[in-house]
Amino acid sequence: MAEPRTVLLAHGGGGRLMHELLAELLPLLSPTAAPPSVLNDAAVLEVEGCRLAFTTDSFVVTPAFFPGGDIGRLAVCGTVNDLAMVGARPVALSLGLVIEEGLPRETLERVLRSVAAAGAEAGVGVATGDTKVVERGAADGLFINTAGLGVVPAGVTLSGDAVQPGDAVLINGTIGDHGLAVLAARQQLGLRGGLTSDCAPLNSLVEALLAAAGPHLHCLRDPTRGGVAATLHEVAGQSGVAVQLEEAALPVAAPVQGACATLGLDPLYVANEGKALVFVAAEGAAAALEAMRAHPLGREAVEIGRVLPRTDDLTAVTMRTALGVVRVVDMPRGELLPRIC
Amino acid sequence: MAEPRTVLLAHGGGGRLMHELLAELLPLLSPTAAPPSVLNDAAVLEVEGCRLAFTTDSFVVTPAFFPGGDIGRLAVCGTVNDLAMVGARPVALSLGLVIEEGLPRETLERVLRSVAAAGAEAGVGVATGDTKVVERGAADGLFINTAGLGVVPAGVTLSGDAVQPGDAVLINGTIGDHGLAVLAARQQLGLRGGLTSDCAPLNSLVEALLAAAGPHLHCLRDPTRGGVAATLHEVAGQSGVAVQLEEAALPVAAPVQGACATLGLDPLYVANEGKALVFVAAEGAAAALEAMRAHPLGREAVEIGRVLPRTDDLTAVTMRTALGVVRVVDMPRGELLPRIC
Repeated sequence: MAEPRTVLLAHGGGGRLMHELLAELLPLLSPTAAPPSVLNDAAVLEVEGCRLAFTTDSFVVTPAFFPGGDIGRLAVCGTVNDLAMVGARPVALSLGLVIEEGLPRETLERVLRSVAAAGAEAGVGVATGDTKVVERGAADGLFINTAGLGVVPAGVTLSGDAVQPGDAVLINGTIGDHGLAVLAARQQLGLRGGLTSDCAPLNSLVEALLAAAGPHLHCLRDPTRGGVAATLHEVAGQSGVAVQLEEAALPVAAPVQGACATLGLDPLYVANEGKALVFVAAEGAAAALEAMRAHPLGREAVEIGRVLPRTDDLTAVTMRTALGVVRVVDMPRGELLPRIC
Repeated sequence: MAEPRTVLLAHGGGGRLMHELLAELLPLLSPTAAPPSVLNDAAVLEVEGCRLAFTTDSFVVTPAFFPGGDIGRLAVCGTVNDLAMVGARPVALSLGLVIEEGLPRETLERVLRSVAAAGAEAGVGVATGDTKVVERGAADGLFINTAGLGVVPAGVTLSGDAVQPGDAVLINGTIGDHGLAVLAARQQLGLRGGLTSDCAPLNSLVEALLAAAGPHLHCLRDPTRGGVAATLHEVAGQSGVAVQLEEAALPVAAPVQGACATLGLDPLYVANEGKALVFVAAEGAAAALEAMRAHPLGREAVEIGRVLPRTDDLTAVTMRTALGVVRVVDMPRGELLPRIC
């Protein structure tokens, strides 16, 4: 296949194509230095003796309102969670709005109220912002960018390259809820009933995790675009390990299960916005699970797999099915569900 | 006139309508606390004993390439300059791309090279980023958001509410260059010849200013959307003072003068991307001018006006013309030149 000479929708999907695009483009951004070998959810910087976390995300979700959230809540949670995944306490958010001319003022106000409410939930406010308006047809309603600034506590180093064979892989609840809730809100699909986004700020859950199992934690990741499957592939690649999931342990809510069956989707590839994959040394797993289960956002926390030594590139992520068969979990190629965040 | 119930292009213009929109929306973002009374170009935060500056800007300029710059250079300079305007040294940038499906890869690569080059010029790199792709027609080619993190040196407090009667108002060169260069690049207008954006990172100029006249500096502002006129109105309002410009002192390049005459535009209202308005106590003005003139980006620095006590709302910004008549310089209402940044 000839290399595509334009950017495709699939390049934004969190899968193989996006990683290939980034691998090609990142060296352009740092022509004199090596690009970072490990892309975590947030960069950690030493600034004047402070350990700061810094991250950014743009949000283009359509529709802007969906069961369990909206673009404003998503913009806060997405960035707060990226900070939380490196163990950082969020300190400030920026808010950049790109508005299509003609957007109802009421919509904008509703989104900003939602930004404020989600910020209050996470204990972080918007410190700086920007508003741009483009003419009708030059954007789709409203795009939001948030950047986040956080403080990483002393001694905390969570990273995609720190995962080790033997680590337990935990998650704080059911998978696939967000992507399917957004899909359901696109009314033409006619999906109904019980699909609700898990969109939530995870910083207090991560604080509890750090307190309970800090020294045993190796890596946290929020499985957004590309879902659990893409995120496990990223981490497995960065740490040079393999991950084996237990199918029977994967928590999937019944409405998600049903919708996935109807649509031919696999919840492993569907985005989450209130979930963390926790890679923790086996001896810390019980304490980590206990801490998560004691938190409102982690009541259904479970161990879903184990980290194994890497034996072969093709088996970086596998799953033992209910029948005991081990099957390969592929890295998704491109966009499964466009514009879910 | 009934209040518009939708967002208008004019709401993004840096003028009166944008300020009205922000005055209405900002309280929604901080429902429990008073919104900041003074909006500077960057927020200054005390974090773990560090004084940090934090700012964000989205860039939707069309066309993406214009004489003297492009959307990538603009995205770096705009954010670096917002940091510089509070006296901060830039430490890290974030880069959020929203790409319309079908964007040529070559365009994207050219923009990223430009981001890298402008970053190298300013001495700051991209620490974290995000890429979203939306379907054809849902965005216009490429939008970029940059957020910036900086360190404010001890003792430096530059703010829009610190300007005092008697202060000199300086600028580091000609006005209106950026807006007209972008306009000229829109070929249907048939403008040609000599119009070049002033787009440049001002952090080293500001460093020189702080070294030469630090204790005398009260406020720095980069006059982008809405131009010098809108920025002076903002500062005059925040400090409760008036500003009187000297028309004869205003530096306007001949091609800008000519294009403005042709189009019926006033360069006072046209955006700049490499200019700083410097409000400095009279006794520091000579040192500040000297420091700027010794810098490549300040060779044409001049004093363009003085700060006066406020006597009447209607005369917050005035200009003494070449004929000695004092005329009112209005706050622009809305969008003069849409999408110039």
